[in-house]
Amino acid sequence: MKIALIGSGNIATFYATRWQAAGHSIVQVISPTEEHAAILARALACPFSTDIQDIVQDADIYLLAVKDDVLLSLQNNQQLQNQFVIHTSGSLPSDLFIDIAAVSACLWPVYSIQKENLTQIENIPLVASCHQEAAIPQLRLLAGAISEETYTLNDQQKGIAHLAAVFANNFTNHLLGIANELLVGHVIPKKLLEPMTRATIEQSFRTNPFDLQTGPAIRNDEKILQKQGLQLVEHPLWQHIYDAMSTSIQETKKQRNKK
Amino acid sequence: MKIALIGSGNIATFYATRWQAAGHSIVQVISPTEEHAAILARALACPFSTDIQDIVQDADIYLLAVKDDVLLSLQNNQQLQNQFVIHTSGSLPSDLFIDIAAVSACLWPVYSIQKENLTQIENIPLVASCHQEAAIPQLRLLAGAISEETYTLNDQQKGIAHLAAVFANNFTNHLLGIANELLVGHVIPKKLLEPMTRATIEQSFRTNPFDLQTGPAIRNDEKILQKQGLQLVEHPLWQHIYDAMSTSIQETKKQRNKK
Repeated sequence: MKIALIGSGNIATFYATRWQAAGHSIVQVISPTEEHAAILARALACPFSTDIQDIVQDADIYLLAVKDDVLLSLQNNQQLQNQFVIHTSGSLPSDLFIDIAAVSACLWPVYSIQKENLTQIENIPLVASCHQEAAIPQLRLLAGAISEETYTLNDQQKGIAHLAAVFANNFTNHLLGIANELLVGHVIPKKLLEPMTRATIEQSFRTNPFDLQTGPAIRNDEKILQKQGLQLVEHPLWQHIYDAMSTSIQETKKQRNKK
Repeated sequence: MKIALIGSGNIATFYATRWQAAGHSIVQVISPTEEHAAILARALACPFSTDIQDIVQDADIYLLAVKDDVLLSLQNNQQLQNQFVIHTSGSLPSDLFIDIAAVSACLWPVYSIQKENLTQIENIPLVASCHQEAAIPQLRLLAGAISEETYTLNDQQKGIAHLAAVFANNFTNHLLGIANELLVGHVIPKKLLEPMTRATIEQSFRTNPFDLQTGPAIRNDEKILQKQGLQLVEHPLWQHIYDAMSTSIQETKKQRNKK
């Protein structure tokens, strides 16, 4: 298929190079950042432009791999009229371009694609979403050229998957950041917690994490809960997290015991 | 060294088998659960008793690998008078037995030791703590027989390390539990998030996780924050966590930008 690319960042690069390797042709790169657009276009051996007005009209697919705010600004762009438009945002619905495009779809890579891992990652999960049933085979074909792990989700499921990703990744990262600050601030080597944390994560993948819960909250160890609350007195926001997490752990236990 | 064991669970088994393999002799197992005590004593080829009154008086080391409440109930036990006592609790201070014992120390294994991994795990981090400087070489010798990764921490540091472990492990596990419930409840395969979560954790080990933060909160994406808040309306405790985490992520960004 002939694919026109809007965007020249890591996600655009990832999709374009993989599709090209799978035999699709990338016909154009459009990106306001001339330097990035030129680098990617050179790598793909295709023309580029910094102006979306220049976009070719005869591509089969228009991939929009841009930030959410840019995506929203393109929502009524006449250049996309009657085209097969695919965006890559996890947080925005697949039908974002339905008013203007022939097909409005989403291929969300559920992974943090970065310069350093661009060439190494294999079979990252891809979420394919589109309200238009007729377009799904083509969408799955394109997804299949990128990854063997493609999940077709509707927009409600996709929204939930994105929310779950915020809990499993963004919030987990922040917790690890707090743990890191605590350790570093008290001259404790940060690798102290690595083996345990790795094991916790791997175990949680194999079963329901709620079955594996340990720690002072689930033991209802009020003495420790109180002591650790005091240790956080200089960090009221972390204390707030500590309380919210502990309450939820205790409440989850109660509700599961009822069943 | 001659080591008497109080406890017959996973941690007791872990220490005892490793010390025996390193040439120390386990002289006795004391545990109220006769079945467990008998199994462990047989494996170690040593006598056992269910009554702490029977404990030998000539061991060099008394390892107390029991739950925190049992540990506290032993705090004034005359059988430990003038002995070299080591407990294994992450949450209680190393000097717990200082009023009665000759040496009161702690060897905290910073890992979740379970039946399934008892024989496989190597070089788990061990935290060695003791107020009595003179006892530290012996404590480190015992720790060194278990693991090459031993950290000598004072009780304040140990308390912080335990708090950090609650954030990095107990809370992380709960977040993964919430993510799991969200996915399962909407018929989304849970392995969708695995590659990303694994990558998040590994990256966070290599640098300061605060430098890696992504997601709607750090982007100040109010639309998504609001939408996701609404998605959690049936789960007020998860909503509470969502808000506490998002606020802390945003505040951390502000404070780091000031620097």
